[in-house]
Amino acid sequence: MIEGHLHHVAYVVADIDEALPSFTERYGMTVSVREMMPAQGVEAVMMSAGPAGVELIRPTDPDGAIARFLASRGPGLHHVAYAVDDIQAALTGLAHEGVELIDAEPRVGLGGHLVAFVHPRSGMGALTELVQDHHPAP
Amino acid sequence: MIEGHLHHVAYVVADIDEALPSFTERYGMTVSVREMMPAQGVEAVMMSAGPAGVELIRPTDPDGAIARFLASRGPGLHHVAYAVDDIQAALTGLAHEGVELIDAEPRVGLGGHLVAFVHPRSGMGALTELVQDHHPAP
Repeated sequence: MIEGHLHHVAYVVADIDEALPSFTERYGMTVSVREMMPAQGVEAVMMSAGPAGVELIRPTDPDGAIARFLASRGPGLHHVAYAVDDIQAALTGLAHEGVELIDAEPRVGLGGHLVAFVHPRSGMGALTELVQDHHPAP
Repeated sequence: MIEGHLHHVAYVVADIDEALPSFTERYGMTVSVREMMPAQGVEAVMMSAGPAGVELIRPTDPDGAIARFLASRGPGLHHVAYAVDDIQAALTGLAHEGVELIDAEPRVGLGGHLVAFVHPRSGMGALTELVQDHHPAP
């Protein structure tokens, strides 16, 4: 048992500055972190949406996975993230259950949190992220 | 400004009982409400996932929109829901901004809450639900 809670949902967008007002002005969300993440070929922003977060991701590497997502599907939901207390223990437990992990080991994600992805085949058709985050809201 | 916060994410699944353990046993979520919703041609369950919710929806009407979603895409993310204090005021304001609404008027959704949907074309590529819910978590 991981005691996961909903941490954030993430959208892929073509232009963060163009997309932001649809969340900040329309829904009153506030930006909590914005980072260039060259290792992932993206720029990302996390907004606080009450008790959980909403992330926007735009491709910076035209050959990266997010650029391919945007080219093939257009903007849309990219992943759902659940917070866990101990990501390494969570990954070990999930692997033992036969869950198909994209990241067998955690890596550093947006905001410096440890993150790991679960394959959509093991995520009810949705790309699923685990986040080790001891803060109540992102 | 709506002061929206993330209320829940919803997945379409073929079989709720088969899907539930992936959330309840794997992530420790707890079921808060489960309802047959014949007007929508679905059965739905809401789980509490910390501060927000995770909903599972299965088609009961083989000719309904959820059955078509499942047939064409398989299980996966269906919508993201944001809570608003006054859904009628929110809908009026969004319509005034030119946001493309699926429901111009709120209707009763899972758990008896007032809900309305925004078209993916106005939801950053994602079907978006507004929920009038004064509870902190579903």
